Amino acid sequence: MVSTQPDLSELDSRLSPGALVTDRDVIDAYSSDKALFCPAGTASALVRAASVDDVVAVMRFATEHRIPVVTQGARTGLSGAANAVDGAILLNVAKLDAIVDIDVLNQTCRVQPGVINQDLKSALAEHGLSYPPDPGSVAISTIGGNVATNAGGMCCVKYGVTKDYVRGLTVVLADGTVTKLGRQTAKGVAGLDLASLFVGSEGTLGVIVEITLGLKPLLAPPVTGVAVFPDMESAGHTVSAFMASGAGPSMLELMDGATVAMINAYGDFGLPDGAGALLLVQSDAPGQAGVAELEGFEAIARGQGADEVFFSDDPADSEMFVAARRAVSPAMEQYVATLGGGELIDDVCVPRSRLGEFFARLAEIDARHMVEVSTAGHAGDGNMHPSVLFDASDEASVAEAKETFAEIMQLGLDLGGTITGEHGVGYLKQDWLVRELDAGAQVLQASIKSAVDPLGILNPGKMLG
Amino acid sequence: MVSTQPDLSELDSRLSPGALVTDRDVIDAYSSDKALFCPAGTASALVRAASVDDVVAVMRFATEHRIPVVTQGARTGLSGAANAVDGAILLNVAKLDAIVDIDVLNQTCRVQPGVINQDLKSALAEHGLSYPPDPGSVAISTIGGNVATNAGGMCCVKYGVTKDYVRGLTVVLADGTVTKLGRQTAKGVAGLDLASLFVGSEGTLGVIVEITLGLKPLLAPPVTGVAVFPDMESAGHTVSAFMASGAGPSMLELMDGATVAMINAYGDFGLPDGAGALLLVQSDAPGQAGVAELEGFEAIARGQGADEVFFSDDPADSEMFVAARRAVSPAMEQYVATLGGGELIDDVCVPRSRLGEFFARLAEIDARHMVEVSTAGHAGDGNMHPSVLFDASDEASVAEAKETFAEIMQLGLDLGGTITGEHGVGYLKQDWLVRELDAGAQVLQASIKSAVDPLGILNPGKMLG
Repeated sequence: MVSTQPDLSELDSRLSPGALVTDRDVIDAYSSDKALFCPAGTASALVRAASVDDVVAVMRFATEHRIPVVTQGARTGLSGAANAVDGAILLNVAKLDAIVDIDVLNQTCRVQPGVINQDLKSALAEHGLSYPPDPGSVAISTIGGNVATNAGGMCCVKYGVTKDYVRGLTVVLADGTVTKLGRQTAKGVAGLDLASLFVGSEGTLGVIVEITLGLKPLLAPPVTGVAVFPDMESAGHTVSAFMASGAGPSMLELMDGATVAMINAYGDFGLPDGAGALLLVQSDAPGQAGVAELEGFEAIARGQGADEVFFSDDPADSEMFVAARRAVSPAMEQYVATLGGGELIDDVCVPRSRLGEFFARLAEIDARHMVEVSTAGHAGDGNMHPSVLFDASDEASVAEAKETFAEIMQLGLDLGGTITGEHGVGYLKQDWLVRELDAGAQVLQASIKSAVDPLGILNPGKMLG
Repeated sequence: MVSTQPDLSELDSRLSPGALVTDRDVIDAYSSDKALFCPAGTASALVRAASVDDVVAVMRFATEHRIPVVTQGARTGLSGAANAVDGAILLNVAKLDAIVDIDVLNQTCRVQPGVINQDLKSALAEHGLSYPPDPGSVAISTIGGNVATNAGGMCCVKYGVTKDYVRGLTVVLADGTVTKLGRQTAKGVAGLDLASLFVGSEGTLGVIVEITLGLKPLLAPPVTGVAVFPDMESAGHTVSAFMASGAGPSMLELMDGATVAMINAYGDFGLPDGAGALLLVQSDAPGQAGVAELEGFEAIARGQGADEVFFSDDPADSEMFVAARRAVSPAMEQYVATLGGGELIDDVCVPRSRLGEFFARLAEIDARHMVEVSTAGHAGDGNMHPSVLFDASDEASVAEAKETFAEIMQLGLDLGGTITGEHGVGYLKQDWLVRELDAGAQVLQASIKSAVDPLGILNPGKMLG
């Protein structure tokens, strides 16, 4: 795409002092997110934007010179969407990290994209407000990145995903135009809903420089329950039956036996040994309603053959169990180090009623391959994260891992699901996106991308390719 | 746009028997929705689609002959979006009214666009499920129309708008391509979110032929409260303070004194006489939490000077008060008949904290003009419907009504709000849409419209014009 090397000194003169970085080592360090097996090209420069004006200057320069731009925040993504492409400017907006406004009366806030999710949560808590979306990366990922991927988390079963909180966006378009999309109010239908279109667009449509979020009152402390099952199928059936009973849990997470064992090897979070599968459930319904909801859960779990079910309304216990769930990632990392360090995390979402079948067929896939598959995920939404664990130093193991990963996505599609519930497409799942979308939808996606970014400079080659 | 009269017999041969209507009287009867002051052009034909194939046939024919197509359902819209344009085919999909599937385990359903909202609610209730969105037209409007306008209602303060329930859409594009957008699962981020883009697009992007909705368990019976205030400002401050207190009411509606008087003249719904303003509040929080929430409401309302506050957990009372709120429309119609029959309903949405100011300035607008303004609306969302009441037979009164209507939209914009919270743009608010959207957003809207509908045959001249 780049015919000649652009004159970066010209760009430098338009930017805040120090924003432009041309040191190759630094550029390379910013050239990948946390995805495996995704190509990272050779970027021509890194811009650490210090202002919206810097973003505008980059996009004008990029348009003038037809240079690709890859927008990135904390680079915690799992699909390669923030990876460099050849010749690109890496436009890092992590330093645009101001909480511009917290509006207590209207329960909204305006933030710049670089605000860390947990930092926003903490700031809001002081005002009696909460922003529920809580991806696994909550402590390290940015709101901008969360919006760009429509991030989810454990709260979604009751509180929805990032999109459900985004009211308005200020974006810088490919040609440097700054525009406001969406609304500030609780409702609004003035024109096509372009704010929703930009949520989850993975940097392919524009650069998000401000976000207006609708908020919730501070959530009530939940009652937490743990149920231990002999196998995944019975846990899966429990999820389906409990959700269909009219329950509205604020969390419903599942871990398979292998995952529980890894957590117990990593630290003591009060989880039982020897579980075949474990469900972690919370209800933040007010007063006795929360306990009643978990009693309903217990009855269903026992009916499905649970070995053990216990509750606690002690906040310390609740926090410990949630910490156990959040420990899946480091615990798996510790375990995988013993195998050769390879971990490929999948993200399929299926109709909840198909979870039992999903686990049965996942076990078959696992059995067919010389890699291990361990599974945790947001069972209440049918959004599971089977991780393929392999030896990254062994070519055969790597090949087997990729094949296993692909079979899991095919299984998701076979069961009426999607290849990605919350991690996004990026580079990682491009070949699979075209299997999920029909021909008409593919053309439509490409037409819209091309209408919004006619030169094709915004994160080219990602998502639809 | 149409160079020559198309050969309709060719179209007829491609459609279900009887689908094509060329009787001028029938076409004319289908040429308008419920909006005032919106042009209705002369359509060339009406097609009452009996199948998705009919929709495909119409779009192919329209593309071949460059004929505009106006999609419509029950024509209950209030912005002229379903009005005929010259030479167009009116594509009415009201007969595509099958509830295709109710999936109890996954709490989803698939419906055709012509299903009446209330009919869906009733069918779902038999399965212990609910679809909350409840526009004023709930008994007569279609789900397809609700999706095309992103309809709201009284539930939105707790349960959100139509968009929050739409997971997937099957649409017929301008060239007749049938494509599936969105997902069937609880979550999904595979590609740009085109389902959200089509929600609220008012027939400008494609024809919706199937909708997958996420559902809620049947909602619990609410506790209902009524608070009577001496004036609108105190009611407005109560709304702002109550919502900011962390409350989560399932309804929070406001009516001004004139509206309450019209309702009392229309029928006995138990509303007090002589109110300056009235708030209707419901909580469906479980157990005692609902009562506690309304006690919190009472304390705030009395602090703001409420003359009277009373509650009931008797379902019959709840239904009666909701019936009172739903009676606003016929009661106003009865009243307006005495004035000359003109009623122009506005739909601005402002930040809740600005409601007090909104009402004060609305009173000034009312005082400046020789028409009456009476106001009801979804106060919990800041979404108000001031109605301008005038003499439709008097040119001066009509002119005054239009000016008043415009001033109310300007007031909404001045207070950081939007010109339309839930009724849409259509023809009625086109001149105002360009005042709300900045230049960049206008270009972006037009680019996307043009990418999706390159010949500009889908509801041309509506929304952005």
